[in-house]
Amino acid sequence: MPVMNKQILLASRPTGAVTPDNFRLVETELAPLAQGEVRVRNHYLSLDPYMRGRMNDSKSYTAPQKLNEVMIGGTVGEVIDSRNDIYKPSDKVAGMFGWQEYGTSDGSVLQKIDTSVIPMSAHLGVVGMPGVTAWYGLNNIIAPKSGETVVVSAASGAVGSVVGQLAKQQGCHVVGIAGGPEKCSYVRQDLGFDDCIDYKSADLPAALKRAAPKGIDGYFDNVGGPTLDAVMLCANPFARIAVCGAIAGYDGEPLVMKHPTLILISRMKLEGFIVSEHLEVWPAALRELGILVATGKLKYRETVAHGLASAPEAFIGLLKGRNFGKQVIKLI
Amino acid sequence: MPVMNKQILLASRPTGAVTPDNFRLVETELAPLAQGEVRVRNHYLSLDPYMRGRMNDSKSYTAPQKLNEVMIGGTVGEVIDSRNDIYKPSDKVAGMFGWQEYGTSDGSVLQKIDTSVIPMSAHLGVVGMPGVTAWYGLNNIIAPKSGETVVVSAASGAVGSVVGQLAKQQGCHVVGIAGGPEKCSYVRQDLGFDDCIDYKSADLPAALKRAAPKGIDGYFDNVGGPTLDAVMLCANPFARIAVCGAIAGYDGEPLVMKHPTLILISRMKLEGFIVSEHLEVWPAALRELGILVATGKLKYRETVAHGLASAPEAFIGLLKGRNFGKQVIKLI
Repeated sequence: MPVMNKQILLASRPTGAVTPDNFRLVETELAPLAQGEVRVRNHYLSLDPYMRGRMNDSKSYTAPQKLNEVMIGGTVGEVIDSRNDIYKPSDKVAGMFGWQEYGTSDGSVLQKIDTSVIPMSAHLGVVGMPGVTAWYGLNNIIAPKSGETVVVSAASGAVGSVVGQLAKQQGCHVVGIAGGPEKCSYVRQDLGFDDCIDYKSADLPAALKRAAPKGIDGYFDNVGGPTLDAVMLCANPFARIAVCGAIAGYDGEPLVMKHPTLILISRMKLEGFIVSEHLEVWPAALRELGILVATGKLKYRETVAHGLASAPEAFIGLLKGRNFGKQVIKLI
Repeated sequence: MPVMNKQILLASRPTGAVTPDNFRLVETELAPLAQGEVRVRNHYLSLDPYMRGRMNDSKSYTAPQKLNEVMIGGTVGEVIDSRNDIYKPSDKVAGMFGWQEYGTSDGSVLQKIDTSVIPMSAHLGVVGMPGVTAWYGLNNIIAPKSGETVVVSAASGAVGSVVGQLAKQQGCHVVGIAGGPEKCSYVRQDLGFDDCIDYKSADLPAALKRAAPKGIDGYFDNVGGPTLDAVMLCANPFARIAVCGAIAGYDGEPLVMKHPTLILISRMKLEGFIVSEHLEVWPAALRELGILVATGKLKYRETVAHGLASAPEAFIGLLKGRNFGKQVIKLI
């Protein structure tokens, strides 16, 4: 009996905000495995802000997501069939199978993962791409010294929560920026940041001045736009800004930087980066993050939606900040 | 008979563009030298864009120029009297005596200069602060590889002309941006850049695409504003931008950066710097620049105005791009 695979394709490109119409759920029959191939039942699909950029047909760091093809995305799951010497059934693997229930691979982009201590879904978050993103931007761009002040936006999210906790462990004064009192309370009380500002209610430059009385030395930017402007106004000389995300600009609104002369006046460094271009740091970063999670020193939170069909709405929610922590889709 | 010293003070802060009214010429009597002091007859005064920033009473990397005090500025001249063991009459020295004919110092910020090969005025330009500025931003921030494309604005100026010539010597494809056909012709033919764009007549992004067909890897930014926006649109992945000046914004017009998301999309690095904060590179940079000038491998050009009283108009001209090469005032 053939196995049917559910997939979500990009049906159309958004004009402005993403809508459910931009996606299409299809069912296709799985072909028998060829020699060397591995079949994986995906257990979790990762939803991440970068996917929004791929949906546009515009210049970016990678080619756009193609229309009528399976949406890109990180996945974790279990090998259910294999004609490949390296992988055997019941192996747990991370891959980039996208928005679908089953993935088929020649083994080339798979990574075996150890789920004995770290739960499978965490390999999509704190001990996965978002965690390494946080690690790289903090350590290799901001490179904070003990006693410096580090600010991070989207502070309750998959990346921001790791940035702040790592910076605290390095002896920094850490201020988060998040949306709403519930997230801010979590960032302060559960994640242990020194403070967290609710960008939805605060006069951001004034609130930053209060929360970072010695000024800002490092900023991990997950959002761009007015938040970046506000941070720049409070930046100390020689501040470093790791530019990781521009979620505020994904829907095509014109987003300018209001005070670029501050780059000179405060001798700042701004640096954009994509973690997939720094594969050399992944092994060390994942090892460190794994140990911190296993020993309870790095906390994380997930928002889990159930079933592949829930992915479009969950993704739209992610772009609007409705998720709380790492957004994943449980597929099984 | 007492010696009279002419000085130009900051009389008022500009509201918008600088006007002659912002300055006041005074004559004051020179006091006799105290023990340890040196008196210098300034031969040349340097006029530089950074002075415009100091005239505002706003947050910047140093305190503002104080009202009713001598305008800040670099000078070169000759010791005419000394009660200091290190300096003797006829020594040639560089200092920061500002807009005045005579300077008196305890010796602490003076540097002896060798004018046997390098003309005195060049110690204010190509073998002085502007030259080291070019050297630092190019070598320590842009750090170009042979074959890369480097763009520099204000290309015929004291800093830009050195940036481009050094980049050419490092095997780069070098494109200048300057104002007007005469300056562009000089940049191409005399300085040997591969191309030069007249920002006054060109559609800048289109002209940059033509002049830098492989895209831009490094940009030495002396102006900010729309020129920076245009360069960012043509920047290659991992482009480095040394942010050295923002002359376009000195008069207080609101200058935004139009496409900040390109920092992420193209994984750019932007870094602001002030050469006086990197004193460790000065000796090596000045040595290299001096040798290049002495051997005819580094060309420069000066606009010389005569007499201290000409400084305000010359400075206003500098801010409007009316000078051609390094602007100095000959004081004797």
